[in-house]
Amino acid sequence: MTIGIVGGGQLGRMLILAGVPLGLRFRVLDPVPEAATDGLAPRVAGDFDDFAALAEFHRGLDCATYEFENVPVTSARWLADRLPVFPPPDALAVAQDRVAEKQFFRDLSIPTPAFRAVQERAEYDDALAEIGLPAVLKTRRFGYDGKGQRVLTSPADCARAWEQLGGRPLILEKFIPFTRELSIVAVRGRSGESAAYPLAENRHRNGILARSLAPAGTDELQSEAEDFARRVLDRLSYVGVLAIEFFELDGHLIANEMAPRVHNSGHWTIDGAATSQFENHLRALAGWPLGSTVPTGHAAMFNLIGTLPALPPLLAVPGAHLHLYGKSPRPGRKLGHVTIVAPTRGELEHRLEHPALKSLVSEPESS
Amino acid sequence: MTIGIVGGGQLGRMLILAGVPLGLRFRVLDPVPEAATDGLAPRVAGDFDDFAALAEFHRGLDCATYEFENVPVTSARWLADRLPVFPPPDALAVAQDRVAEKQFFRDLSIPTPAFRAVQERAEYDDALAEIGLPAVLKTRRFGYDGKGQRVLTSPADCARAWEQLGGRPLILEKFIPFTRELSIVAVRGRSGESAAYPLAENRHRNGILARSLAPAGTDELQSEAEDFARRVLDRLSYVGVLAIEFFELDGHLIANEMAPRVHNSGHWTIDGAATSQFENHLRALAGWPLGSTVPTGHAAMFNLIGTLPALPPLLAVPGAHLHLYGKSPRPGRKLGHVTIVAPTRGELEHRLEHPALKSLVSEPESS
Repeated sequence: MTIGIVGGGQLGRMLILAGVPLGLRFRVLDPVPEAATDGLAPRVAGDFDDFAALAEFHRGLDCATYEFENVPVTSARWLADRLPVFPPPDALAVAQDRVAEKQFFRDLSIPTPAFRAVQERAEYDDALAEIGLPAVLKTRRFGYDGKGQRVLTSPADCARAWEQLGGRPLILEKFIPFTRELSIVAVRGRSGESAAYPLAENRHRNGILARSLAPAGTDELQSEAEDFARRVLDRLSYVGVLAIEFFELDGHLIANEMAPRVHNSGHWTIDGAATSQFENHLRALAGWPLGSTVPTGHAAMFNLIGTLPALPPLLAVPGAHLHLYGKSPRPGRKLGHVTIVAPTRGELEHRLEHPALKSLVSEPESS
Repeated sequence: MTIGIVGGGQLGRMLILAGVPLGLRFRVLDPVPEAATDGLAPRVAGDFDDFAALAEFHRGLDCATYEFENVPVTSARWLADRLPVFPPPDALAVAQDRVAEKQFFRDLSIPTPAFRAVQERAEYDDALAEIGLPAVLKTRRFGYDGKGQRVLTSPADCARAWEQLGGRPLILEKFIPFTRELSIVAVRGRSGESAAYPLAENRHRNGILARSLAPAGTDELQSEAEDFARRVLDRLSYVGVLAIEFFELDGHLIANEMAPRVHNSGHWTIDGAATSQFENHLRALAGWPLGSTVPTGHAAMFNLIGTLPALPPLLAVPGAHLHLYGKSPRPGRKLGHVTIVAPTRGELEHRLEHPALKSLVSEPESS
């Protein structure tokens, strides 16, 4: 079976590494000069909206998937007219527009922050009056890693944010004074079978995920998250892995956003769960039984951002598993991740005190 | 760091899959039309004793290793004159000759079956008189998967075996009425640091490894095996993974043979140990700290030989991890393996009763 992956970043790379032992073959579409998947699968170096490239890419594929959510929906639908595309392009369409996404959650009775679509200055003023401060102004589309977002706590913030973002389609959301950020990674197979991993607790630094810790949450939060995930999966007749990010407030979950793909906050599953999110995404695509999502212990995943630390000290940390993406260093770029696993939470916390982790573990700002 | 691998079979493939996340690059040497490493690393398609191919292969490598033990020692030494080669070519030389290997064990006070080198018919008769029946006649070189071996239990066997094997350099060994076959996989780093995995218990079918179960053995057997492994590693100033196969008799170990490479009886470590044998081989080569060899539970590994079973039922077995080698089916060929893991031995035995494993689990002849 040959699977096409739209996008040649680290998520594609880890999908391929999970799929090769399953006997799967891959082809990648990505216009970049160097992709993280290079050397592991052939690549069509064309733009995502170049239909000649799409035609070359899709020939002979058994199905296609994507590894980032800003794939043009028209391209995904062009592919879906010709071969199975998982997750369904409708999931892309929802996830690409923060207003459609929040409306979608609301239609499924999944709590979200209060929000208002904003385009004109007058709508902005109305929305501010309705929602109040603090609030968050975001672009509706193409935001990721905290880009295109402004937290508003004063009238001066409101004016400055409008100067910077105004004129584009925006969303104003009520700021949630959350206890913590949690995310769930769930998966649905072609038969409708679904499964979910334990919640991960996420910390961000400069808007980029810095650390995920799993399992996190309580039984109540876990069952709330699994219930929400199943509503999304079933409504979209979804196939593959889905992630939903939540705020925890007063012991309940408020949905922030979803990603119709394998997710950074699920990387711990490679080393910390019976089956990784990457393998389960592929099992779902292939129509195979899903693998167990049970954690094998406790795990903490740290992104390696911008520059790589010295590797030997990192590899000396008990329970350390290194995953590099073959990318050259650049500020703000995710170059790899390291997951520390341990049989118990106490032992994990002990391992996290290792000096080699100091620069990774230092208390990051949570955004 | 770029590592050259002599041999492009499944062991090379699994080394590459373990090394890519560590940021390592690879180049393979193998003359076959299709190698199991193809698509994952560039390959020089030359013979192992072709010095032009070796020259092309070695250019720009940081070090070289091999994934089968019949690499010509002259080729390994040619490489070792030009770059670090791990494990050392001396280990190859010892492992390629069953007489040198047993003499090497004996020099290290590691018990072996009684043996005699045999070339002429008169030496054969003398050896039979000295060692007695039952015995095993083997070719000294190029034996693997039970090839080039005859068990002798009667004078008629002795005559027939001589007709089939006589004229080549042979070894006659006393047959050991073993309780079971056990193997240890150990690893030594460039700093001299060493580590060992728990013993695996192996069953063969038609001379080919069919099943490994780990951890096996007792604390006494484990410490005996680790002691023997350390003697071999230190004597050879070894770097990388080494496997030693033993017979268990009366609660002690008798060394049968060693393999200076990652080993089929260590495949369970991918899914059943904190660090796989493949990653630890690479950590050793790179001069990095070794990873923990602690088992994460109990594991049973089954080779998929000749033809592949239906995959979905196999993937439905709780704790199943599939590893295919990308090879076309052929009688007697190792096409992949599946490892079943479980937190306890009792749970593992329960999982092994799954109907999808029936054809794999059925009691194999132990040779």
